[in-house]
Amino acid sequence: MTDAIPNPVLVHVTRGGAVESSHRGAGVVVDPAGRVVATWGDVERPVYPRSAIKPVQALPLIESGAAERFSVGDAEIALATASHSGAPEHVALVAAWLERMGLGACDLECGSHPPPDENAAADLDRAGVPPSALHNTCSGKHAGFLATALHLGEETAGYVKPGHPAQMRMAEVLGEMGGADLEGAPVGTDGCGIPVIAMPLRAMALGMARLANPDGLSPDRAAACRRVYGAMAAHGRLVAGRGRFDTRAIEAGSGAFVVKTGAEGVYVAAMEGLGVALKIDDGAKRASETAMAAILSHLGVLDGIGVLDPYLDGVVLSRPGDRVGAVRPAPGWPG
Amino acid sequence: MTDAIPNPVLVHVTRGGAVESSHRGAGVVVDPAGRVVATWGDVERPVYPRSAIKPVQALPLIESGAAERFSVGDAEIALATASHSGAPEHVALVAAWLERMGLGACDLECGSHPPPDENAAADLDRAGVPPSALHNTCSGKHAGFLATALHLGEETAGYVKPGHPAQMRMAEVLGEMGGADLEGAPVGTDGCGIPVIAMPLRAMALGMARLANPDGLSPDRAAACRRVYGAMAAHGRLVAGRGRFDTRAIEAGSGAFVVKTGAEGVYVAAMEGLGVALKIDDGAKRASETAMAAILSHLGVLDGIGVLDPYLDGVVLSRPGDRVGAVRPAPGWPG
Repeated sequence: MTDAIPNPVLVHVTRGGAVESSHRGAGVVVDPAGRVVATWGDVERPVYPRSAIKPVQALPLIESGAAERFSVGDAEIALATASHSGAPEHVALVAAWLERMGLGACDLECGSHPPPDENAAADLDRAGVPPSALHNTCSGKHAGFLATALHLGEETAGYVKPGHPAQMRMAEVLGEMGGADLEGAPVGTDGCGIPVIAMPLRAMALGMARLANPDGLSPDRAAACRRVYGAMAAHGRLVAGRGRFDTRAIEAGSGAFVVKTGAEGVYVAAMEGLGVALKIDDGAKRASETAMAAILSHLGVLDGIGVLDPYLDGVVLSRPGDRVGAVRPAPGWPG
Repeated sequence: MTDAIPNPVLVHVTRGGAVESSHRGAGVVVDPAGRVVATWGDVERPVYPRSAIKPVQALPLIESGAAERFSVGDAEIALATASHSGAPEHVALVAAWLERMGLGACDLECGSHPPPDENAAADLDRAGVPPSALHNTCSGKHAGFLATALHLGEETAGYVKPGHPAQMRMAEVLGEMGGADLEGAPVGTDGCGIPVIAMPLRAMALGMARLANPDGLSPDRAAACRRVYGAMAAHGRLVAGRGRFDTRAIEAGSGAFVVKTGAEGVYVAAMEGLGVALKIDDGAKRASETAMAAILSHLGVLDGIGVLDPYLDGVVLSRPGDRVGAVRPAPGWPG
């Protein structure tokens, strides 16, 4: 994962007309057959997909029959793909889902953190209540792991561990959807405690292209892909939360595309005929959001959609409130 | 400020043994005669020094006679060099200083923001009181501008504007201390509303080398440098705040060196015989802190000082609380 040839600069942060900081990265657009439509930088080097790959990780929840067994609707499937904000709507849905399975917050092994939703965090603070694992931005994905394990008669405790069948299913579906041999790939531990397997951006993009265009896949896999894509497209608010890039983009796209963010500067998108994946080398969110908006714009799917304009010309303000700089795609990029 | 030849990778963020993200940058160590002792990356390209250059910006406060006139002690001088945390100790000292000059928070033109000190922010929040300009991390520097303008009989209103004598003095002292011709250099607006002039890292490092080793300068300039260095060394708590890198480093160094952070990944240090300046290309603080700790360690000034060890081997935790990665100097760097 070291870089011999530096990736190109994708995003500039300017101040007073000069470039103050810059963000390098790589990105790729592929079609469902794996043909590269556009590429920038090294897209073969393995990178940790982090939460960006949750849409693919949600497939076994449906394919196993667990979703049907536990009355998992599109809202819960959207939450299984989500890095949600821990707002009451997210927390209540995950809590009810766990309850239907005879489980609770204590069965989640993702740890806890203050919810990204500022109102929710302030409410907890005022009430003197610590955040629970339900507020963890990954609690929907973890509820999905629990559902699948429970349905298949597996031990639920320890479902985050590398040897647990739930995680072996993850490795399998990631490799299949990405068309990648992940044997021997670098493995780490994700923020929520599960194994994270490094894979090339090209493979991540292919997984997303197939998710949105599953015609060539097996009928069960294709049906699961359609369900996940549809759930994300219909419930943009549950995939992230109020005011966030993914929610704004998905809602504005009205089903034309879905996007998903991951920690350390990863982003993916899926749409008719295409999948997209990018990673900012330094992990900066301001850059990954700008880069994803730039690629979506480049692909023409933002035509008539203004909601992502703030990410194409981000405002840097001084404390007195003047506009003193911008966060923008590097000149000439993505083309 | 664009980069033809990419700067080297200075800092790695690892996960599970693989590099997940990396940070490029440039850095330089010079002696007081301007001779380069060590250099990494492009140190001639102009970069905005941001708050890292405050120690040099504090010189006119002393040289003008304003410090003597308004009973400005070492604590206030340390605050003039500070990006302080807005804790009660910082706020009270700046407020009292302004009062001695017949001025108040309303004369500060730096804008306001919630104080970085979490306790102070929570106290304001609980009391329902919005932060004032006194809480601005730059309020000490701005009090210094006001003191100098008032002492020299200049209009205090508008002291942040590019044409105001206070800002022209800034440009002059930066050029003199850095041995750089700043005519025609890129100029932007800093976060606190004053002009920020881009200068090469080599010039920033020279300014810091001279600050700590002013023997070759004019007697007045040398005396002012000694006073600023001494004030920072004696009041590390006022230069930043509880728990922060600069405060921990300066206090642990017991006068052997001073350091100063700036926004967007800038850092400088000054010590006997040397000045240091670095900038992380992407502006990340996690990387600039690690890089500064690495250079200080490389120079041998951390021998027997363990307080910066956490910056040389930074812990990446999962939400469940396991150590899953590290933030470290890139292997083999700085040498």
